[in-house]
Amino acid sequence: MFAPVYLDHNATTPLDPRVLEAMLPHLSGRCGNASSRHEYGRAARRAIDEARGRVAAALGAHPTEVVFTSGGSEANNLFLKGAAACMKPGVLAHSALEHPSVREPARELSRRGWRTAEIAVDADGRVDPESYAAILAEGPRLVSVMLANNETGALQDIAALAERAAGAWFHSDAVQALGRVAVDFRALNAAGVHALSVSAHKINGPIGAGALVVDKRVELQALVAGGGQERGLRSGTENVAAIVGFGLACEIAAARLADDGADVAALRDELERGLARLGATVFGQRAKRLANTSYFALPEIDGETLVAKLDRAGFAVASGSACSSAAPEPSHVLRAMAVAPELARGAVRVSLGHDNNEQQVADFLAALSATLTQLRRLRALAG
Amino acid sequence: MFAPVYLDHNATTPLDPRVLEAMLPHLSGRCGNASSRHEYGRAARRAIDEARGRVAAALGAHPTEVVFTSGGSEANNLFLKGAAACMKPGVLAHSALEHPSVREPARELSRRGWRTAEIAVDADGRVDPESYAAILAEGPRLVSVMLANNETGALQDIAALAERAAGAWFHSDAVQALGRVAVDFRALNAAGVHALSVSAHKINGPIGAGALVVDKRVELQALVAGGGQERGLRSGTENVAAIVGFGLACEIAAARLADDGADVAALRDELERGLARLGATVFGQRAKRLANTSYFALPEIDGETLVAKLDRAGFAVASGSACSSAAPEPSHVLRAMAVAPELARGAVRVSLGHDNNEQQVADFLAALSATLTQLRRLRALAG
Repeated sequence: MFAPVYLDHNATTPLDPRVLEAMLPHLSGRCGNASSRHEYGRAARRAIDEARGRVAAALGAHPTEVVFTSGGSEANNLFLKGAAACMKPGVLAHSALEHPSVREPARELSRRGWRTAEIAVDADGRVDPESYAAILAEGPRLVSVMLANNETGALQDIAALAERAAGAWFHSDAVQALGRVAVDFRALNAAGVHALSVSAHKINGPIGAGALVVDKRVELQALVAGGGQERGLRSGTENVAAIVGFGLACEIAAARLADDGADVAALRDELERGLARLGATVFGQRAKRLANTSYFALPEIDGETLVAKLDRAGFAVASGSACSSAAPEPSHVLRAMAVAPELARGAVRVSLGHDNNEQQVADFLAALSATLTQLRRLRALAG
Repeated sequence: MFAPVYLDHNATTPLDPRVLEAMLPHLSGRCGNASSRHEYGRAARRAIDEARGRVAAALGAHPTEVVFTSGGSEANNLFLKGAAACMKPGVLAHSALEHPSVREPARELSRRGWRTAEIAVDADGRVDPESYAAILAEGPRLVSVMLANNETGALQDIAALAERAAGAWFHSDAVQALGRVAVDFRALNAAGVHALSVSAHKINGPIGAGALVVDKRVELQALVAGGGQERGLRSGTENVAAIVGFGLACEIAAARLADDGADVAALRDELERGLARLGATVFGQRAKRLANTSYFALPEIDGETLVAKLDRAGFAVASGSACSSAAPEPSHVLRAMAVAPELARGAVRVSLGHDNNEQQVADFLAALSATLTQLRRLRALAG
């Protein structure tokens, strides 16, 4: 069968074959419960310990600061609900760009005595300093600003933001940033960042493992309470295979980032030159962005329609963040950036990976051009 | 290397090779995010839908009643915390035998206005009817009684218990029961059971998938909020491979249960005849029990020591529930059964699986006998 070209790496990434190979012994041998006090249990525990060390090393954290979860959404929920449960209600500040797994817990907390303050962003999706200053003046207890946005790829200077937020626990959703820009928890922590959420499946690791990397001064209540795994912060039998895969994926991603990182950027630049020729608007183009992400719209072209046409033409791209695509409505990210609704409806996201190449980008641009011609001809006929 | 004999199936079970084979395409192909609107995303969605149907069929539930979680602990937490969040605080009743992932959420709720009532059990670990009646008279809003206990294997007649609990949402942790006794949610639901927690890795499926099977009249707040997956009850990118594995593991377990189930029972009876010859006390022996579980103690022999000796002799068994083995203290289950502390300290659990055979049981009994002789000789020398 003809395999479509995958250009949706911000939704999920293919599992690295080396990562799968490292996971397989934990899926095909007799895998023990890491809490068990026999050789099978100890082998599982050793594998988890080693993976914890790898994740910590890749993130510049201490192994005891890594709390494994089932993924990034759980890590975001663990931080927000877990920290809030240990404090008196107050102000919870988050940027207008946050992922639903930050915005929804914030909404829940707003029904339990917390006041949610949304930090505004500029037209390129960067935190607005004046809005941030006004919210800081309210003395928030919790602040959450994502490191890299999943739709635009826009990066925030979270160290600088955290330095200004004394008195609050500062959290950052680093799910899209991990493996794409250097993330050093030790340096960020020194600047006042107390917790980072990360996920394995965005860095060619398996779905099913993520972590909250967290300063141990932050008191947290577990979301999943029980047997007391993960220092009592995340109970449940540890997913040994997924955790082992996460560890190796972190190590590979860190090595690759040190090596190059420029390859994907060159592909994205080539893509955006082609998009410019087709008359596209690229969202957040003036912001510092992830090198792999291009979020754009073409005048008078509906994004959902374009994604469906490209899918049939053999290219897998997104019309918004995958997590909210099930209920299509104008992207809250573009709304926060004050993008005109008629342009926002055209939003399409291409997110590249290490497995993409120049030919695929050229083929994509050709298919996009042909699709546009077709859609415009139909429009002219209908008009 | 010499592979120890695994006799700890209540802690976790080896992954069925057929299950791994079904999972591999979702680990080695280009796996999509099930929320994505392209061919890769749709393929992931179809695989999840099919697995949901298999889990539902094995449990006698409707597919829309299956909420996938990362495992059994999360399912227990989702029910207890999720239902409590949607109600006025009241009485939460649970048996004295429950797993920590029920007792710990209950303890958290007791700090938020709920009153926890612990239902007593008899010397064989069966719910005490008088204690239950007295607690029902208090009008509990939530009741949780496990179907099969992880330590003793004792079964509760949850249909009969639920019938008496009108006005409460009745939940049962069925993690240890699934695949070992028939579980029919439709029949249980008719009797007044509103939710069941189940887990894949106890039935030769992967760690990382479980479910709350739940009557849709039960209002629940999500533990993990965000993108709105699983009808808004469990956000986060679905673990496609683990869910697919869970589906097949359910199907295999249901077929095997219909076929025999007697093989493991015969092995366990053989084991217990041997244990009787060695002078062991088997806990919960007069209760209806899971056919695979034998929980016993030998006079004046410490359980932890025995487990360590047996481990060195090549047999993997447990001294208590694996989840709490990290912090050894007398089992709360045996305490609830009023077992004398000196006997409880000797508790060792053997839990058999379909991969065990007669020779292994005979070898285990021989190793146990030799270890006992050695320990008693040491004791005599020390005395």
